[in-house]
Amino acid sequence: MGLSRNFSAGPGALPLTVLQQAQQAVLELPGTGISILGLSHRSTRFRAMLEEAEERLRRLLQLPPSYRVLFLQGGGTLQFSMVPLSLLQKGSVADYVVSGYWSRKAIEAARYHGEVRSAWSGAASGYRRLPRSDERVGSDDAAYLHYVSNETVEGLQFRYLPVTAAPLVCDMSSDFLSRPLDVQRFSLVYAHAQKNFGPAGVTVALVKEEVLAKAPRGLPPILDYRAHVEAGSLLHTPPVFAIYVVLLVLRWLEDEVGGLPQMAKATAEKSAQVYAALDDSNGFYRAHPEPTWRSEMNVAFRCPTPELEARFLADAAAAGMIGMEGHRSVGGLRVSLYNGVTREDARVAATFMREFAAVHRDDAYERAVE
Amino acid sequence: MGLSRNFSAGPGALPLTVLQQAQQAVLELPGTGISILGLSHRSTRFRAMLEEAEERLRRLLQLPPSYRVLFLQGGGTLQFSMVPLSLLQKGSVADYVVSGYWSRKAIEAARYHGEVRSAWSGAASGYRRLPRSDERVGSDDAAYLHYVSNETVEGLQFRYLPVTAAPLVCDMSSDFLSRPLDVQRFSLVYAHAQKNFGPAGVTVALVKEEVLAKAPRGLPPILDYRAHVEAGSLLHTPPVFAIYVVLLVLRWLEDEVGGLPQMAKATAEKSAQVYAALDDSNGFYRAHPEPTWRSEMNVAFRCPTPELEARFLADAAAAGMIGMEGHRSVGGLRVSLYNGVTREDARVAATFMREFAAVHRDDAYERAVE
Repeated sequence: MGLSRNFSAGPGALPLTVLQQAQQAVLELPGTGISILGLSHRSTRFRAMLEEAEERLRRLLQLPPSYRVLFLQGGGTLQFSMVPLSLLQKGSVADYVVSGYWSRKAIEAARYHGEVRSAWSGAASGYRRLPRSDERVGSDDAAYLHYVSNETVEGLQFRYLPVTAAPLVCDMSSDFLSRPLDVQRFSLVYAHAQKNFGPAGVTVALVKEEVLAKAPRGLPPILDYRAHVEAGSLLHTPPVFAIYVVLLVLRWLEDEVGGLPQMAKATAEKSAQVYAALDDSNGFYRAHPEPTWRSEMNVAFRCPTPELEARFLADAAAAGMIGMEGHRSVGGLRVSLYNGVTREDARVAATFMREFAAVHRDDAYERAVE
Repeated sequence: MGLSRNFSAGPGALPLTVLQQAQQAVLELPGTGISILGLSHRSTRFRAMLEEAEERLRRLLQLPPSYRVLFLQGGGTLQFSMVPLSLLQKGSVADYVVSGYWSRKAIEAARYHGEVRSAWSGAASGYRRLPRSDERVGSDDAAYLHYVSNETVEGLQFRYLPVTAAPLVCDMSSDFLSRPLDVQRFSLVYAHAQKNFGPAGVTVALVKEEVLAKAPRGLPPILDYRAHVEAGSLLHTPPVFAIYVVLLVLRWLEDEVGGLPQMAKATAEKSAQVYAALDDSNGFYRAHPEPTWRSEMNVAFRCPTPELEARFLADAAAAGMIGMEGHRSVGGLRVSLYNGVTREDARVAATFMREFAAVHRDDAYERAVE
């Protein structure tokens, strides 16, 4: 059968040219006589891949030399532990912005390792909003302020930095490399690959070097950023294939898309199309977040009834679009627009949404007045 | 170019039919319209894969219901920490067999988490031997005895269990699924996939359920076997592609090879061919381990001079054979014979070794008497 358009919240869509190159490499990495799955992580070839991936990431992000780049396993979830283990000294307190599903997971995990504080909570709003751009968050003397730049489940996204003098730590798993990043304000940024820049199984961390100097001694190396830095991300066997696919995405971002400003432009256009279909529906679709904090990556919304949502998913699938269900914790619908989703994909999704609303708006209205 | 024969110590060779199916799935998982790289780990399809992988593993290993099967990230190295975190209570001591490179890594990591003891060391022998089959190892009241069933670097392999009444914990990363396993004696077995049954990025753990009941409370979930068991290996996004390839290897083992006794037969035949080439060389090749403990997975040996070893590698590469260099910590040569290496591969390697020895034996002899 033909390929579907993939609007999954993650693992998500990857560019077709990346999939084609990855596919080739699974049998034979071109010109090498060997499968990427059988390539030794100690080989010259793999080291060159790792170097190129780091160089491209540095160029795309204009990363200063004072930041180290790590490729790790364990997803965002292992970072939820590694961050406080390294950055939260005894006697200090870390602030967490609790803005949705993933930031709740982050603070819950951090409690195992030290004293943490909910510096801001979106609970009262039903996780429909984020701190305002002029709202001070947490305490300036916190060990760090942790936040999640894009809440995948609720469809909330920060378009600015939280206001604090504390060092910033950010989980950018669901919007990393979708737009330029001014990394200088951050002590640490991490992002798993499976939304915007690769398959599940590898996580990138950008660590400000001076942060590592203060990290406690005596951590087991696998949980210690310093050990990974010293080993050049080769402390233990890295996920070779996942890193190779990340490299292919980085090449695509730089050489085909043209860089992060261009990616941001595409992201904005894609989400504008989908939100317009939503806003033009006369209330048939209801977005989860308040307008200011709508995510460009994940459009989370509902139809008037669960029956219509089920119908929406079935009709979308019949039209070759998959992955539009909401997160199991909240239900509803969600259209994810990661880097691998094309403008054409977004246009087709928006058109489908408009048509579905046009057909079912009257049904829903009639049922409401019966 | 044509495909090389891959004798790498890991990531290692995978069966060609597995590579071909994996390749197809990178563009489109047959009949689904979606790339395996974009497949949601919450999808019905992925859950079915995870279930089938567990069922096949259970059948292949004849695993009793009292053992739980986990698919984890972080390689053997994360297990080096998770094992003592869960199994080494305060006031207890864990015994470690220190038989080579990987068991040294295991005990070093465990020291971060509790009191450990070197129960047996191969250091005095230059890591050329293992405990004898009638040699009691460690203390019967140890929290557990940890050992590495196959030392990849030194080419040593246990053909029997270490003699102890303590619960056994084993790192089987480099010989898992190469032979049947009587799991009942073990509290915990773990193995990363990238040698015998998949690509880098996923690790299987077999955990005896009763062990978990005694594990301390208050571990962060990502480091707690119980949390992974409760979540059915979906505590966080699993490495979807790596698990899919493991499933393909398990299908291959069961449906094409015919099971682990048949795999063991192939393993024995492959290693017999290579060791015969080595033993017939009149001392041109010298195996690293003493004969009793020679590994069927990794044949570690030397030529008379480093120059001949460099020549060996160059000639092997020219003949389409790669990955025969020894580990960077010990040098020399190494032929790895994981499940994905065919009988034909082993035959070709053995023939090459015989021819190389025949050509260079006299050179080496002449140089020695000059």
